Amino acid sequence: MRANHKRSKTPAYYTASIAYDRRLAKYDIAGSVAHARMLAKQGIISEKDAELIIMGLVAIRQEIEQGQFPFKEELEDIHMNIEARLFEKAGDVAGKLHTARSRNDQVAVDVRLFLKDAIKDSARGIRGLQEALLKQAEANRDALMPGYTHLQRAQPILFAHHMLAYFHMLQRDMGRFQDCLRRVDMLPLGSGALAGVPYLVDREFLAKELGFARISENSMDAVADRDFIAEYQATAAITMMHLSRLCEELILWSTEEFGFIKLSNEYTTGSSIMPQKRNPDMAELARGKTGRVYGNLIGILTLLKGLPLTYNRDLQEDKEGLFDTVDTMVSSLEACGGMVESLTVNRDKLAKAAGEGYILATDLADYLVSKGVPFRQAHGQVKALVEYAMECGKSLRELSLPEYQRFSPKFDAGVYEITPQSAVEARDVPGGTSPKQVQRALAQAKRILEEQGGR
Amino acid sequence: MRANHKRSKTPAYYTASIAYDRRLAKYDIAGSVAHARMLAKQGIISEKDAELIIMGLVAIRQEIEQGQFPFKEELEDIHMNIEARLFEKAGDVAGKLHTARSRNDQVAVDVRLFLKDAIKDSARGIRGLQEALLKQAEANRDALMPGYTHLQRAQPILFAHHMLAYFHMLQRDMGRFQDCLRRVDMLPLGSGALAGVPYLVDREFLAKELGFARISENSMDAVADRDFIAEYQATAAITMMHLSRLCEELILWSTEEFGFIKLSNEYTTGSSIMPQKRNPDMAELARGKTGRVYGNLIGILTLLKGLPLTYNRDLQEDKEGLFDTVDTMVSSLEACGGMVESLTVNRDKLAKAAGEGYILATDLADYLVSKGVPFRQAHGQVKALVEYAMECGKSLRELSLPEYQRFSPKFDAGVYEITPQSAVEARDVPGGTSPKQVQRALAQAKRILEEQGGR
Amino acid sequence: MRANHKRSKTPAYYTASIAYDRRLAKYDIAGSVAHARMLAKQGIISEKDAELIIMGLVAIRQEIEQGQFPFKEELEDIHMNIEARLFEKAGDVAGKLHTARSRNDQVAVDVRLFLKDAIKDSARGIRGLQEALLKQAEANRDALMPGYTHLQRAQPILFAHHMLAYFHMLQRDMGRFQDCLRRVDMLPLGSGALAGVPYLVDREFLAKELGFARISENSMDAVADRDFIAEYQATAAITMMHLSRLCEELILWSTEEFGFIKLSNEYTTGSSIMPQKRNPDMAELARGKTGRVYGNLIGILTLLKGLPLTYNRDLQEDKEGLFDTVDTMVSSLEACGGMVESLTVNRDKLAKAAGEGYILATDLADYLVSKGVPFRQAHGQVKALVEYAMECGKSLRELSLPEYQRFSPKFDAGVYEITPQSAVEARDVPGGTSPKQVQRALAQAKRILEEQGGR
Amino acid sequence: MRANHKRSKTPAYYTASIAYDRRLAKYDIAGSVAHARMLAKQGIISEKDAELIIMGLVAIRQEIEQGQFPFKEELEDIHMNIEARLFEKAGDVAGKLHTARSRNDQVAVDVRLFLKDAIKDSARGIRGLQEALLKQAEANRDALMPGYTHLQRAQPILFAHHMLAYFHMLQRDMGRFQDCLRRVDMLPLGSGALAGVPYLVDREFLAKELGFARISENSMDAVADRDFIAEYQATAAITMMHLSRLCEELILWSTEEFGFIKLSNEYTTGSSIMPQKRNPDMAELARGKTGRVYGNLIGILTLLKGLPLTYNRDLQEDKEGLFDTVDTMVSSLEACGGMVESLTVNRDKLAKAAGEGYILATDLADYLVSKGVPFRQAHGQVKALVEYAMECGKSLRELSLPEYQRFSPKFDAGVYEITPQSAVEARDVPGGTSPKQVQRALAQAKRILEEQGGR
Repeated sequence: MRANHKRSKTPAYYTASIAYDRRLAKYDIAGSVAHARMLAKQGIISEKDAELIIMGLVAIRQEIEQGQFPFKEELEDIHMNIEARLFEKAGDVAGKLHTARSRNDQVAVDVRLFLKDAIKDSARGIRGLQEALLKQAEANRDALMPGYTHLQRAQPILFAHHMLAYFHMLQRDMGRFQDCLRRVDMLPLGSGALAGVPYLVDREFLAKELGFARISENSMDAVADRDFIAEYQATAAITMMHLSRLCEELILWSTEEFGFIKLSNEYTTGSSIMPQKRNPDMAELARGKTGRVYGNLIGILTLLKGLPLTYNRDLQEDKEGLFDTVDTMVSSLEACGGMVESLTVNRDKLAKAAGEGYILATDLADYLVSKGVPFRQAHGQVKALVEYAMECGKSLRELSLPEYQRFSPKFDAGVYEITPQSAVEARDVPGGTSPKQVQRALAQAKRILEEQGGR
Repeated sequence: MRANHKRSKTPAYYTASIAYDRRLAKYDIAGSVAHARMLAKQGIISEKDAELIIMGLVAIRQEIEQGQFPFKEELEDIHMNIEARLFEKAGDVAGKLHTARSRNDQVAVDVRLFLKDAIKDSARGIRGLQEALLKQAEANRDALMPGYTHLQRAQPILFAHHMLAYFHMLQRDMGRFQDCLRRVDMLPLGSGALAGVPYLVDREFLAKELGFARISENSMDAVADRDFIAEYQATAAITMMHLSRLCEELILWSTEEFGFIKLSNEYTTGSSIMPQKRNPDMAELARGKTGRVYGNLIGILTLLKGLPLTYNRDLQEDKEGLFDTVDTMVSSLEACGGMVESLTVNRDKLAKAAGEGYILATDLADYLVSKGVPFRQAHGQVKALVEYAMECGKSLRELSLPEYQRFSPKFDAGVYEITPQSAVEARDVPGGTSPKQVQRALAQAKRILEEQGGR
Repeated sequence: MRANHKRSKTPAYYTASIAYDRRLAKYDIAGSVAHARMLAKQGIISEKDAELIIMGLVAIRQEIEQGQFPFKEELEDIHMNIEARLFEKAGDVAGKLHTARSRNDQVAVDVRLFLKDAIKDSARGIRGLQEALLKQAEANRDALMPGYTHLQRAQPILFAHHMLAYFHMLQRDMGRFQDCLRRVDMLPLGSGALAGVPYLVDREFLAKELGFARISENSMDAVADRDFIAEYQATAAITMMHLSRLCEELILWSTEEFGFIKLSNEYTTGSSIMPQKRNPDMAELARGKTGRVYGNLIGILTLLKGLPLTYNRDLQEDKEGLFDTVDTMVSSLEACGGMVESLTVNRDKLAKAAGEGYILATDLADYLVSKGVPFRQAHGQVKALVEYAMECGKSLRELSLPEYQRFSPKFDAGVYEITPQSAVEARDVPGGTSPKQVQRALAQAKRILEEQGGR
Repeated sequence: MRANHKRSKTPAYYTASIAYDRRLAKYDIAGSVAHARMLAKQGIISEKDAELIIMGLVAIRQEIEQGQFPFKEELEDIHMNIEARLFEKAGDVAGKLHTARSRNDQVAVDVRLFLKDAIKDSARGIRGLQEALLKQAEANRDALMPGYTHLQRAQPILFAHHMLAYFHMLQRDMGRFQDCLRRVDMLPLGSGALAGVPYLVDREFLAKELGFARISENSMDAVADRDFIAEYQATAAITMMHLSRLCEELILWSTEEFGFIKLSNEYTTGSSIMPQKRNPDMAELARGKTGRVYGNLIGILTLLKGLPLTYNRDLQEDKEGLFDTVDTMVSSLEACGGMVESLTVNRDKLAKAAGEGYILATDLADYLVSKGVPFRQAHGQVKALVEYAMECGKSLRELSLPEYQRFSPKFDAGVYEITPQSAVEARDVPGGTSPKQVQRALAQAKRILEEQGGR
């Protein structure tokens, strides 16, 4: 949620972040609980003090969960809101919690914990869409359709092959999020304001308590670093780009002109003025939301440009864009998942389009190659043949053998055996669109999903 | 305010915009009132119907102003929320309001009305900062300071001259917003869904009622166009860039190392851990917020890229980024205005820095030019002189005349009359830093502010 | 042209800009000629010296025009290359040229002169495309086609109306470039390094000589300011966005599925493998090049973010992106102009599409409104009617009057008079798609082009 | 290198890419050689034909390496230039090379091969800068300096600790490039135009020949995918952001005001007008070049937004921005490496700054904590103490014990033992700035570099 800045003379509203960083409350409390526990373990505060602090924090967590926490803008951020409340709950002992830490390493912990969860949500969203794509691919596994380059019909393909192309894009996104996670999964606590802390803290214990894989190696870097946000934003931008490509196709395929699919009613809306309309609004929104995620990426990169070490208040601006990207991308993945899952394929229309026009021209050239003609020469002969056919207004199938042979003596009756189906079957290389290859690819995709634990 | 998308299976949350477009309510109602009035004037609906509709709309406006309007997410957007409420208030006659218009031209009117107000706010924010700059310039009109290039001391200047540099940057921003306004100030209503409306509407009347300077000339363009948002975003991005430059300087000048200014307490904050800190948080935030405004610009440009005519649902995504930019920029202008107005200049430190080191070297070269030495040669001789002085650890003032003359026989006792003050006075060209020129510039700046009507 | 940075240990290549700023040569020389003339007029150098300098500069200009100038990377930039050559041509007097100026105000003059020309080229490119759009509009002035919202057929329109929508977008671009020009058209010379110059220069004379409308008002601002580049980049980004929308439509319309237009052979290319292909490569490239122009905009904004006054070497990076944007946009405008001018419209296909399906549903609702039904009610009745027709597989035309009347008793035989042609004629409001309005709009567009002086 | 688009009526210049994609020549030839070898191995062409083709390709490679290849713009791209030349060299057999492939999978191979090399160069550049940072850290391992937050002095640190912060940032960049490499390292050849090829090709053999780790799994994805470019661009953008932060600090530290370091002459430049200047131009350029790399990232993301499958000509625009980013980042890494390696640290100035002012205030608070005062209370007491000292114009050291005790009775003579050195030593936690921890970190950094194989 972006804060709605009210305009006033007093600048408090300008620096306050509580309108959005309250979302970090549960992470902030988890971090503080672990910190208190560690302080006691190390003898920096007493066990009793730690207990009082932790009891207070747990009570505050409940208040927040129940929507009863009195957030105050004048306390500016979530950390100060919680600390102030802790004083109310636990008394002066609350003042010991901030021993051996700073807001600088505290907020870094919070955002990292948040992002670890966000990456889980992102992965779940990706998986959901992958499942929907796979379901459609399997449900229409023998459906032919035209494959496009330059949005011109190019060669026949299997609809399932097209769906799997998106499956693989998303699989790369998954990989990128996992790689990003490795860099997020590092505890900054113990870095203090910038230089480390003059207490015998146990950072490995903190990491274990909070579920981090390792601890940061340089305190100045730890409080100044927001790479992990930039990396998440970049990864999300690529994922949204993928969704924009998918949605562009769904929008095209839903036009009267293409007519390849019908989106379910849940994913279309009507018009305030035109009674006949069924608009693919969800797909358009997902495509449009790509812009905001790109924008958030530029936002964080601009923010970090030229910042000297270590913490600068500019960094406060890292969070709203992050929250917005997480929400936008995860909800877009979910919307696309539902949209793909519930769409209906018009197989007849697809099959018809796969056979029209001159879509088999490449196969004619390859046919000539099989008769010994060098590819470039074959390509030239078929190009001339197609131009001739266009002029006559005939399809390839309607040309007579003598007509064929006018362009190459190598043509024989075999040309009539070239069909969309045969064209698809011929592309029987790993990664190709032949039914056999696609079958194998479907099995592999299912395996991938299973290994990832399903939905 | 950015909507906080909750995740759910039902896609309603995904398409709803009511969380943020409620901000358009007053513009939507104004548009509807004018529309109803026009429909009646043209005999498309009866006067009585119009009256009922307008009474209902006025009542709804009151509800909203008093925070009593029951916004409903399931009604998706502000237009449908208001229309539904109008049915409750005015009965079936409400159904006549949407005659001869579409949501497509309705939302375009709303955003344009909003933006006209936002440009007024933007201009007010600019003017406020300009006034603060001018006030500081006048209060310190004879203060010397080092002028910098490459963040190295270059030549002495007047502090007031430096302040006025920002005044002029902001004056250009003002010009850009005014130019943008001319393109915003156009009524799209009457364009219908895309093709115009089949009713005898009076668009000029509508324009007059709503205060637009003119009507749109092509209905398809009118509903598909979001240029004016992109232009506003670009103009705001340049303005924020200016603020980032100003804030960078305020941050630098507030360091112990520079020590040129002291920000007032209201514009600094302390540290959670370091008791001595007085951090320039406001300036850092304004600098950091530049990123989010750049991001919003990229957001709208990405959104519009490759969109076919006319309305596409992607366009719904134009608003949150716009609202965010308006709020961010206007509040940043206000924060900067207050920060500049309330800062204290350490004139002694500035004056001392203006006289240290070799900052007068250019003036020595110009001195030689006045004795007939070609500039390039003079430049070379002074460069050698400065290197010699650095090696000796002497300032220019500490060099003896024979030492000077070792580098050029043209040097005479006049070199000792070159001072920061004389250097500043010498630059007496229009736009230059001499006291006379700066005095003139201050007067002109005051005139500009007066012509714009002051705060 | 972007420099191809070779990798070496010596850092000279890193700072050199001569690989691209040589493009500024003619502006640099013009600036120097005017400067020398002014120095002599003011008695700062002798008339004779000025003459020698100017003769040398003229000779250098010729060398450059004839491709015989010995550009040297070790001299880093165009200014030093020319000055060094001037020493070779004119001897020591060359050393007097740099009196009363700095590279900081010199380069600012050069870029502003370049940009004034670039804006002329940009305007010419826009006008060319506008002419092509107008020509197509006039040649097909009575052709009907479906108008789209959400890429779904919405209401019939005139093809000419669609073309004119782009004409008006481009007209706004023109306005933005002219506004930008006013801010570019300002002489910075005389600002020196940052503080003005200690010579009695005549800046108004310089402005007149070089064709600038006015002189800069603050020397620090003058050398630090690159707003005008950012503004040009933003304006170009919006223009490219317009081209991307146009090209998206041309690509769609060229598909087998739409089949609305045929691009001329000059604007399509074949495939290396598929003999039948006629791909709309030009349109795709123009759409793709939008990205690079957006990128250049972000480049300059990022560069300027947080830069303290005045000149910083970062600013050297302002030029390559500018040159690239000018070249990209102007060539894209030309390509689009040619593409639009030479395309063929398939009027039959357009007309057929304009009559199919339920595209006249809005007109049925408006028909009911004309019989006294409130719009919302009429909309609901027609929606039900359309759903019924879809289920029966009937077009609106195929429904019997009793069928109509089942949904509203107000329907009578008049419904059969509603046709795409009548629908278009009914939208007879200013800005609407009726033949009368479009005729008026065409005349106005022609007037605009004539006032701008034609190609 | 970006092509310098000349303006002409004929659109050939608009589609040609040979001006920049010639850079792919060696990869294109390697790809073709492997393809020919595979075609022969599989019996698709004869061994003899393959031999002739390969001999021709090898000869062409030599021509290119020797700068004797006749590049022709009318042949548009590098692929067609090489194929045309192959016909000249090898005769009609050249026509067999394009069997079982398309330009779509061919160009994808070329760019992936290029990028694998570019990632190696990127890694080398990173390592070089890491070595320079480590060298400076070791050479100044006991130098104290002020650590900053908000550009205000915060706590004393070791200079080496500051250097190592950048080492770790760059180590993350290294990780991101390696992760990116895994996704680049995949053979697309065999995907044909989009659907796979109707020949019994051996894709695993091709992968092995060309050094790819694996083959692509979906032919449509393989020709449509440019994720790997976007990912590289994003990774480079983060790396440039790191350089911009480093350079900002080098610029600050080089000012007269800070005076912490002196850049070597090789990395500074003079002024055309001010003889005394030594400007940190390299650092400014690297900071400025961040903008262009951010721009290239936005360029590719914009380009890909909303593109339907599979190949579209927009994709041709993927290369110039990539080349520019690789060149910019690698040369910036090298420049920064040299700059850091050759700078001189002014230890006295650093040490003095580390002891001035109230930089030890946190340690006073921690001192009170060690006496049993809760941190918040201690923080408050020291804050009051510092304010008192500021008002008196005394440093902490100059305060008497009674003065200390006025703010807390817990203060005793031990406060005078708190020094910058003791403050640094106290922060003896993993990742902290104590000499022991920094020593350990230096050893670890050296180990990392050794494992990566040194320069």
